[in-house]
Amino acid sequence: MVPQWIIEKKRDGEALSREEIEFFINGFTDGSIPDYQMAAMAMAIYLKGMTFDEVAVLTETMMNSGDIVDTSAIERPKVDKHSTGGIGDKVSLILAPLVACCGGGVPMISGRGLGITGGTLDKFEAIPGYRTDLSVEEFIGVVNKCGCSIIGQTGRLAPADKKLYALRDVTGTVPSIPLITASIMSKKMAAGLDALVLDVKWGKGAFMKTRENAKALALSMVEVGTRMGKGMAALITDMNQPLGRTAGNTVEIIETVKALSGEGAEDLMIVTMALSAQMLTLTGLAPGENAAMLMLEEKIRSGEALEKFKEMVQLHGGDVSSLEDFRKLPTAKTIQPMLSPKNGYIAAVDAEKIGKAVLLLGAGRMKTTDTVDHAVGATDLLKIGEQVSKGDPLLTMHINSTNRLAEAEKLFMDAFIFSDAPVSPPPFINELILPEE
Amino acid sequence: MVPQWIIEKKRDGEALSREEIEFFINGFTDGSIPDYQMAAMAMAIYLKGMTFDEVAVLTETMMNSGDIVDTSAIERPKVDKHSTGGIGDKVSLILAPLVACCGGGVPMISGRGLGITGGTLDKFEAIPGYRTDLSVEEFIGVVNKCGCSIIGQTGRLAPADKKLYALRDVTGTVPSIPLITASIMSKKMAAGLDALVLDVKWGKGAFMKTRENAKALALSMVEVGTRMGKGMAALITDMNQPLGRTAGNTVEIIETVKALSGEGAEDLMIVTMALSAQMLTLTGLAPGENAAMLMLEEKIRSGEALEKFKEMVQLHGGDVSSLEDFRKLPTAKTIQPMLSPKNGYIAAVDAEKIGKAVLLLGAGRMKTTDTVDHAVGATDLLKIGEQVSKGDPLLTMHINSTNRLAEAEKLFMDAFIFSDAPVSPPPFINELILPEE
Repeated sequence: MVPQWIIEKKRDGEALSREEIEFFINGFTDGSIPDYQMAAMAMAIYLKGMTFDEVAVLTETMMNSGDIVDTSAIERPKVDKHSTGGIGDKVSLILAPLVACCGGGVPMISGRGLGITGGTLDKFEAIPGYRTDLSVEEFIGVVNKCGCSIIGQTGRLAPADKKLYALRDVTGTVPSIPLITASIMSKKMAAGLDALVLDVKWGKGAFMKTRENAKALALSMVEVGTRMGKGMAALITDMNQPLGRTAGNTVEIIETVKALSGEGAEDLMIVTMALSAQMLTLTGLAPGENAAMLMLEEKIRSGEALEKFKEMVQLHGGDVSSLEDFRKLPTAKTIQPMLSPKNGYIAAVDAEKIGKAVLLLGAGRMKTTDTVDHAVGATDLLKIGEQVSKGDPLLTMHINSTNRLAEAEKLFMDAFIFSDAPVSPPPFINELILPEE
Repeated sequence: MVPQWIIEKKRDGEALSREEIEFFINGFTDGSIPDYQMAAMAMAIYLKGMTFDEVAVLTETMMNSGDIVDTSAIERPKVDKHSTGGIGDKVSLILAPLVACCGGGVPMISGRGLGITGGTLDKFEAIPGYRTDLSVEEFIGVVNKCGCSIIGQTGRLAPADKKLYALRDVTGTVPSIPLITASIMSKKMAAGLDALVLDVKWGKGAFMKTRENAKALALSMVEVGTRMGKGMAALITDMNQPLGRTAGNTVEIIETVKALSGEGAEDLMIVTMALSAQMLTLTGLAPGENAAMLMLEEKIRSGEALEKFKEMVQLHGGDVSSLEDFRKLPTAKTIQPMLSPKNGYIAAVDAEKIGKAVLLLGAGRMKTTDTVDHAVGATDLLKIGEQVSKGDPLLTMHINSTNRLAEAEKLFMDAFIFSDAPVSPPPFINELILPEE
């Protein structure tokens, strides 16, 4: 096979065969196909698209370029959730123990934060002692013992994706639905799941800025996962305002504990419960969504879910007492409210601005080599539709450094848009995407 | 400026600014923009196109990446012709002395053959002693003395194009009208011309397979040249059958001498005279096409044009006596007719097959390092519309090696399609393209 002939075929809008995709991606991974041919191919894919069948083969090929985590020793139905990322998104922390309580096995391989988007691993590492670097054997052991484990990337997961992502980043080919799908799914599918539920976010604080694009990505991932023999569902959710009332690391651990105790913010709970319900339904652990919801609510009411969270933290070496006495978590030096400049209703809370402000406080990474300050962040964030009086807090800042504080304060303040008239909160979930029959 | 932002702009179909094009092409040429970013850009240009203004800037930038031939010392109006290449295309050899006779200055920088397309330089090198490697000073001197000179590439002409062409060749981005335009025009414009006439060929033996694509390329080149301040015209000509009655090197030199003596094949003369007439009109050397035609016919009838050709050959060090006694040119060992298998009319002569057959005889290069056998080729080629009897020659082969002769013979034979009913010859010129008012 000749690489440029395959490029030409895609350039002309034709579908590539399994053999052509494998030849191209394997050649790119082993270096026999140079970066410049992959770059031309990536641009052709960006502009001409791929069929779901092509994307499924691309995903499989990228998955097979690296290690496949052998989760066959997990006795429960294996189900995971993937979010395309947002501000204040602590759903995984609540959802994993909840689903585990209901009989699911959740072997979650998660990531660190970069840019405005927080990372699940960074949040866990706010808990003293929590290890995100379990070996595969330890990981499987924890899932078998308590039903869920959340760790960082293990081994050599989809190196083709790693290499391709670096190239896409500098060739203007990042926001391609087929390439994003293969990138996400090749890594998720390397964990040997039975089912996967996707939280595809759109809006100011999301990678996908429009609902239409989020839906296109969701459809693509659901179709590709289905072709790979997995149970699949996706929710399209709103990420114009942050999810829940906190953004940071320690502050999100505390919000997680509160949510698992039945005191979660409305938007956070609606999204978490809906995603969890899909996980239970897809794996047959619940006969339907309504039954799943009742099961999940009971696990929170009974305290089982919170206990499961603590059990998982303990099995990861984390200090469980810090989940009862939050002063044992990293705590910021200064805690300071930001006050509303006027009376009115909250009309918008720009998630991107909140994310940037929290990043400036030190809760995230501008670049991968930055270190994270787990203590800082924002709490008590007002939500769209809530009424506020002049001088009431819009949020509370948790601060350790005054370095870029003024900049962060301006972003926090600019994030809030006020209305004199009452405002209805937006729907938190826009749509459920299931495989086409 | 950030390279990937410029790629994204083109990817989204926006027009690039002069600064962006210069930054990108100069960066690619000096290596600060890597091949993979140029490859993604080339694919984006292929699929999203460029405005004529963008192509003009791209052409200028590529032209300015290398040496500009200083032709200011040429006292005549400087005018050149460029052909997109074909089989049996010896137009330059006839046209240059013709236009020179009429007062034009033709500083022609030409190329070698590659693949099925013959090269003007290879044809000249069939003449013992002819030097294609004159210095720029010698080149200018010859044009000033006799009005025309045809040499090979001098100095560092448009290195950006050389580097980009090599990349396009392996990334499926060769047949892009904007990129072909900039590639051709950047080199032609580096010779400091007042006017340029284009022979854009289409059909079986041409780079452009359809008349529509040839027209699009012609329009693009004419518009870009006009934006660069040059007098421009293009002819769309038919390259389904070979041009004239010979294909090879020595055989095309002999056909050139015959054409300049008034014994040229009809199609060859129609195309050559029409292109020459445009050159005279654009430079004001003739008041109009009809007047130009009369001037050109007179230069052939009087023998002036043939004398001019000999003068140019002599000034290049060529043995002029070989143009009178063709036995002094490289001559093939075996000369052998290929006979018609039936009675009828010639309905088609596949130029690509004739080109491949001549290449197999050794008249051209499969790769740039091959050597050319100047003696071999085909003569007496029948043309579409001509009547033939079984056993009459379809062409005459000039052979030095029997190595791949059987293969060549099959291609020659397969090139001819016969008809029982009379066939009209196709029009040799389809269209004249002038700049839009």
